[in-house]
Amino acid sequence: MAGNSFGKQFRITTWGESHGHSIGVVIDGCPAGLAISLQKIQKELDRRRTGQSNVSSQRKEPDRAAIRSGVFEGVATGAPIHIVIENQDTDSRAYENIKDVCRPGHADYTYIAKYGHRDHRGGGRASARETACRVAAGAVARMFLDGFGIDVFAHTIEIAGVRAERFDRKVIETNDVRCADPAAAEKMTEAILHARKDGDSVGGVAEIVATGVPAGLGEPVYDRFDATLAHALMSINAVKGVEIGAGFGAARLRGSENNDQMRAGDNGPVFLSNNSGGIDGGVTNGNTIIARIAVKPTPSIHKRQNSVDKNGDNAVVRVEGRHDPCILPRAVPVAEAMTLITIADQLLLNRATRL
Amino acid sequence: MAGNSFGKQFRITTWGESHGHSIGVVIDGCPAGLAISLQKIQKELDRRRTGQSNVSSQRKEPDRAAIRSGVFEGVATGAPIHIVIENQDTDSRAYENIKDVCRPGHADYTYIAKYGHRDHRGGGRASARETACRVAAGAVARMFLDGFGIDVFAHTIEIAGVRAERFDRKVIETNDVRCADPAAAEKMTEAILHARKDGDSVGGVAEIVATGVPAGLGEPVYDRFDATLAHALMSINAVKGVEIGAGFGAARLRGSENNDQMRAGDNGPVFLSNNSGGIDGGVTNGNTIIARIAVKPTPSIHKRQNSVDKNGDNAVVRVEGRHDPCILPRAVPVAEAMTLITIADQLLLNRATRL
Amino acid sequence: MAGNSFGKQFRITTWGESHGHSIGVVIDGCPAGLAISLQKIQKELDRRRTGQSNVSSQRKEPDRAAIRSGVFEGVATGAPIHIVIENQDTDSRAYENIKDVCRPGHADYTYIAKYGHRDHRGGGRASARETACRVAAGAVARMFLDGFGIDVFAHTIEIAGVRAERFDRKVIETNDVRCADPAAAEKMTEAILHARKDGDSVGGVAEIVATGVPAGLGEPVYDRFDATLAHALMSINAVKGVEIGAGFGAARLRGSENNDQMRAGDNGPVFLSNNSGGIDGGVTNGNTIIARIAVKPTPSIHKRQNSVDKNGDNAVVRVEGRHDPCILPRAVPVAEAMTLITIADQLLLNRATRL
Amino acid sequence: MAGNSFGKQFRITTWGESHGHSIGVVIDGCPAGLAISLQKIQKELDRRRTGQSNVSSQRKEPDRAAIRSGVFEGVATGAPIHIVIENQDTDSRAYENIKDVCRPGHADYTYIAKYGHRDHRGGGRASARETACRVAAGAVARMFLDGFGIDVFAHTIEIAGVRAERFDRKVIETNDVRCADPAAAEKMTEAILHARKDGDSVGGVAEIVATGVPAGLGEPVYDRFDATLAHALMSINAVKGVEIGAGFGAARLRGSENNDQMRAGDNGPVFLSNNSGGIDGGVTNGNTIIARIAVKPTPSIHKRQNSVDKNGDNAVVRVEGRHDPCILPRAVPVAEAMTLITIADQLLLNRATRL
Repeated sequence: MAGNSFGKQFRITTWGESHGHSIGVVIDGCPAGLAISLQKIQKELDRRRTGQSNVSSQRKEPDRAAIRSGVFEGVATGAPIHIVIENQDTDSRAYENIKDVCRPGHADYTYIAKYGHRDHRGGGRASARETACRVAAGAVARMFLDGFGIDVFAHTIEIAGVRAERFDRKVIETNDVRCADPAAAEKMTEAILHARKDGDSVGGVAEIVATGVPAGLGEPVYDRFDATLAHALMSINAVKGVEIGAGFGAARLRGSENNDQMRAGDNGPVFLSNNSGGIDGGVTNGNTIIARIAVKPTPSIHKRQNSVDKNGDNAVVRVEGRHDPCILPRAVPVAEAMTLITIADQLLLNRATRL
Repeated sequence: MAGNSFGKQFRITTWGESHGHSIGVVIDGCPAGLAISLQKIQKELDRRRTGQSNVSSQRKEPDRAAIRSGVFEGVATGAPIHIVIENQDTDSRAYENIKDVCRPGHADYTYIAKYGHRDHRGGGRASARETACRVAAGAVARMFLDGFGIDVFAHTIEIAGVRAERFDRKVIETNDVRCADPAAAEKMTEAILHARKDGDSVGGVAEIVATGVPAGLGEPVYDRFDATLAHALMSINAVKGVEIGAGFGAARLRGSENNDQMRAGDNGPVFLSNNSGGIDGGVTNGNTIIARIAVKPTPSIHKRQNSVDKNGDNAVVRVEGRHDPCILPRAVPVAEAMTLITIADQLLLNRATRL
Repeated sequence: MAGNSFGKQFRITTWGESHGHSIGVVIDGCPAGLAISLQKIQKELDRRRTGQSNVSSQRKEPDRAAIRSGVFEGVATGAPIHIVIENQDTDSRAYENIKDVCRPGHADYTYIAKYGHRDHRGGGRASARETACRVAAGAVARMFLDGFGIDVFAHTIEIAGVRAERFDRKVIETNDVRCADPAAAEKMTEAILHARKDGDSVGGVAEIVATGVPAGLGEPVYDRFDATLAHALMSINAVKGVEIGAGFGAARLRGSENNDQMRAGDNGPVFLSNNSGGIDGGVTNGNTIIARIAVKPTPSIHKRQNSVDKNGDNAVVRVEGRHDPCILPRAVPVAEAMTLITIADQLLLNRATRL
Repeated sequence: MAGNSFGKQFRITTWGESHGHSIGVVIDGCPAGLAISLQKIQKELDRRRTGQSNVSSQRKEPDRAAIRSGVFEGVATGAPIHIVIENQDTDSRAYENIKDVCRPGHADYTYIAKYGHRDHRGGGRASARETACRVAAGAVARMFLDGFGIDVFAHTIEIAGVRAERFDRKVIETNDVRCADPAAAEKMTEAILHARKDGDSVGGVAEIVATGVPAGLGEPVYDRFDATLAHALMSINAVKGVEIGAGFGAARLRGSENNDQMRAGDNGPVFLSNNSGGIDGGVTNGNTIIARIAVKPTPSIHKRQNSVDKNGDNAVVRVEGRHDPCILPRAVPVAEAMTLITIADQLLLNRATRL
C-alpha cells in the first residue's frame, strides 16, 4: 500500500536515500531460470549515472551494483533478487543551508506537509538518485524480455524547444543528450550549457519505443497497458505529461485520420499507421509501442527565488550543490527501465488470461 | 490482479457488458457513517448518459441506479456498496455485421488476441458503457470529499482544434459540449455536427480541476499522486494523453519560469503560480490540482476502412450503430469521477502516514 | 485493502447482507475460454442452502443464481463474472429485539466498535449468508480445476465429540451431517437434535481433501500454499482452528515419524505417508492436500445470556429467529469452495514462476 | 503477487538466502515520526539467534542488524526502512552431500518442482534463517504498538508431549525452551536432548498472547483479523496448525459454554470468559488475543531416510549439518513478530474505516 513498490508479478520495491549509506531494489517475481548478468546491470547503470558529461550533475557516483540474493550460479532461482548500490559521493554540506527552507518545485514543502520530518540531505528519498534502482531492475527485465525478442529504447526528441528532426538510432548514445538527430543534439547541448551559465535549467521531451511486444498485453479495464505505462512513467521524477501514440495530437485528428487501418499480415495484422502507439482498448495490438514524456526543467537553480521555510515564514532560496541543468538525458534510461518493467509485468500477468 | 478494480482503500470493482443484462460497481472501503444519497448518484449518472443532445449517441438508456448493499437507513455501514444499473436499450442488431470483423481503433482485434473469444454486442466489456459505473462510484467519492471541502469539476477546453478562450464555470453545464466558453462551445458543437454529417468523428481535450485538496496526499515513490491520477485518467476509454499543471508546456520553460514560488500564507504557503498543477515530488502541495486529458476521435465512423476479420483475412469495415461523434462531452463526468475516486483513496491512505 | 476480496489472479469480491435485496460475487480473473455451467453453480448452492433438513436453519431461501456478466455463449470471456442471488425469505422481525443488544459470540459488539453503525437484520454482512457467494465462486473454480484432474471434497469428521471412524466417500452426501461414516452420522444427528431441544448448539471438525494438485503450487515465503489456505479457511464464519496434514498431532511426533519418506514413482515421488498434508516448505508436493477446520458451536442459542447493549450497559439476551443448531454440515461446501478458489488462484499464479 | 511480502499498510518484504551474502527486510509504511531504536531491534534478534543453548543449532551467527534507510536522526521518515543482517557463519560443506537429494519434510523436492533450480546451501530461501528478518520487522512494529499500550508475547506450552501446567510470565525467558512453567521447561529440555542423542527431533506448541489490542481491528469478510493472523502464523517454517481462543477445543463445547458472556465495564464490555481468543466475527473485541501454533519436529534428522534425488530416482538421505533438534523455542520470537506485524498493519488499516 505504501508506495515504494511497482508491478504485480514482476514486482520491484526500492529503498534508500540520496545521501544515505546505500540504495537498493528487491525484485520479487523474476522468473526462475533466467540467466542474470551483473555486467548487463552495470552497463545500464553506467548510462544513468552522473558525472559523465558537462550537461549533467558533477556528483561522482560509481554506482557499482552488487547482487545480494536470488541468483545462484548465475541463474535466477525464483527468490527475491536484491541489488544494492552504495552511495559514495555524499557531500551534504551544500544542503545545510536549505535544511530549513523549501526549494520551489521540489518535494521539500510537500514532504514536510506529509511526514512532518524529512531527510533533507541531497533530497533524501525524493531525489532522482532513487531511479538508479529502477534502472537496475529494468536491466533484469530487459534480460527477460530479450528472450521474447522484445526491445525497448528511448531518446530525446526535444530540449529547450529544440526538436529532433531526423532519426538515426545509432546516434542516440553517441551524444550527451541522447538525441537521434546529431545536429539537433548539438543545439540542445548548447541550450543546456547556456541555461547552466545563467544559473537556470531547461526541460524537454523523450520518446520511448518498444518493438516486438506481442498483441494481447494489458488488463482491462483499469490496469490497461496504457494506464499502467502512464502510471510507470509519471512516477519518474520531473515528468509532468505522458502521451501514447499520437497523444495530444490525436485530439486534433478526425476518426478517419486517426484510426489505424489494417491489412492481413503473416503474423497478425499489418497496421497502415500507428496513431494508437500500439495499444487499442488498453491492450497491445502487436504494433510498436510509442510513448512520450514531458520532463520539466530541473527545479534546482542558482537564481534567487521566493519561498517559505519549514515554519511557513517567508524565505529566499538560492540552490547550491551539484545538479543537472537538464535532467532529461539521464531520464532516458529511467523511462526505458520503467517501460521494460511494465512490459515484463504485463507479459507475466497475461499468462493467467486463458484456459 | 485482473484489472477490473481501482483504488486501494476506496476500492471500486466494476462488472458488466454494454449489451448484457446490467452493469454495476462494488465500492469496498467507503467509510462507515457517510450519508449516501441515491439522488446524488442519479444526478451524476444523468450527466453522463446518452441521448441528451444531438452531439451524443442516440442510444436511450435511463441509467437508473439501485443500491443493493452497504447502505442501511441512508448511511454507509462499512460493508461493500453495490450499485447496479440495468441495460435497457440493447439493440445488438447493428453489431451483427461487425461480429467477425475488427473495427480499426477499437478493442476488437486486441480482445480476440488476448482472450480468443469476445462478446461483440455493443463492444461488450470494452464499451464506454462501463464508465457509468465509474460515475456512480465517483458520486459516492464526492459525497465523502464534500465533507472536507474538496470540489472537483472538469470542462472541455478543445474540440476539433477549437479552443476555449474564456472560463466561466457557470457556463459549463449549460452547453452540450461542457465548455466554459460559450462562444467556443458553439463552434465546437458545429465542428462535431459537421464531422457527424461526414460520417466521421472528432476528438478534444478536457481539463480537470480539484480545489481544497490538502497538502500531503500521494505515496512516494511509485504511487505518487500524479502517477496514480495518470493511471486513473489514462484508464478512461479513448484517452491518449495526460498532463499535470503546465504538462508538455513545462518542457519548454526554464526552471526560473516553471518553478512556483511561494509566500507565507495563513493556511500553508501561497503559490505565485501553478505550473506544478498542485503536485510537487508526487505529493499534493495544497494548491489547486490541474490535469488535462487528450481524447481521440471516436473510432466508430461510418466511412469505409480497411481492416481484418477475426481469422486475420482482409476485410472492409463500415461501422453502423449509434455512436458519439465526439466522446469528449460525456467523458467529462467520467474524468471527474476518476479524479474524485483517486482523491478519496489517497485521502484515506494518507491516514496511515504518521504516528 | 478493504477486506471483501480474496485471491490474486482468480479474485473474488462479494457484496450483500443477509436481509438486504440480494447478495453476489464478482469473479475477476476467471480464465477466458472456460465453459461455465449455471446448472453446476446451482448444484453447489443447493448443497449449502438452508431448510434442507432438521439439523439446519428453517429459513427458506431458494438461492437461485443468475449470471449477469462475463459469460457469452456459455463461455467465460475473461471479463468479470458477476453472479447474483436474491434474498427472498428475509423476515427481520425476529431481529427487532436484538437490534440494540449484542449477542455473545456474534459480530454485534465488534461491528459497533468498528463501524459505529450496523445493519442488524439477520446479522447483516456478518451473517453466514455471505458464504453462498463463496460457494458460487467455488463452483466456477471447480469447473476450471476439473480440466486439470483436480478434485476437492470435504466431510464432517467430528460433531459434539462424536468422531467418524470409517470413511466411505459415497456416504458423505447421503446424510444430513455430511459424514463419511454412516453410524457416526446418526449419532452426530442425534447430538445436534438433542442440543436443539435444549435451545443450545454444538460444533465440530471437518476435513478437506484435494487430490490431483500438482507439485509446485504456493508462493514462498509469506504466500505459501498452506498460509494462503489457512487464510481462506479461517475467514469462514465460526472457524476457530486450521490444521494441515498431521497438524497439532505433528507436534507430538518425532521427526523420524513425521517426515514423509519418498520412493521413486512414475509421476514424481511416491510418499510413504502424508503427515505433511501434501505441502512441504509451503509448496505443494504432489501428494493429497489434507486440511481440517474446527467450527465452534453456533453462537445463536435460545438460552438467556449476559451481555451488553449498544450503549455498553448490561443486558440479557435470548436469541430468537431461525438458526442452525450446528453450522458444520453447511460449512462443508463452503470449506470446499474456499479450497477450490485457493487452488485455482495458486495454479494461475504459478504460471509466472518460470522463464 | 510473488509471495515475499506481508501486510498492506505496514508492509514487509524480505530477501536473502541462508548461506548467501546477507539477508534483509524492507518495511514500507512504518509511520513517520516513530522513534526507531537499533538496540531494540538487536535485542529481539538476539532472542532468535542460534548458538545460545544446547537445544538449538550450533551455527554461530551474530545477527547484527544495520539500518540502511528510512530513519533520520533516530526517527522514521515515512520512507522504506531497510534492515540488513550479514551472514557470517555460512559453512556450506555439510550441504554438499544433499545437493542432489531431497530431504524428506524439507522444501527440496517442492522447490525443484516449482523452480527447476535451487540454492541448496543451508536450505537457501526456504531456511528458517529468513525469519530473522521477520523478527527485525516485528521489533519495529513493537515500537509502534508500544505507544498504544499493546503488548505481545509468546511462550512454549508443549514440547514432545510435555505440557506446561503453570504460567509465570517472568519465567519464560529464563529457560532455553521459553516455557512459563519451570518444571515443565526442565522436562521439555530433557526430551529435546534425548531426541538429539537419538539423531532425531521433536515438535511442540506455542501460545501467542496480545494484550491491549483495541476492539474493532480486522477487515470483514476475507481479511478478518483471525484469518490474517492465521496467514501470518502459518507462513512460519514448520507450523502445521493455528488455532484462536478455544480453537479445536471449541468444537467440543456447546454454544452456552463457548459463548463469552459480557458485563458492562468502564472501557467497553468485560468478558466473563475468552473462548473467542479476543475475536468475534473476525474483528477484535477488546479482550486478550490468544492464538496457538503447532510446530512439527525439525525435518533435519541424522537417521537414514528413504527419499529421491533430483532426477526422481531412489536415494537414501542422512542429514548432516547444524540443526535445531526442536525449532519451537526459536519460533517463539518469530510468532511474536508475525503477530506484532499483523496488529500494526490492522491498526493502520482501521484508520480508514470511518468517516
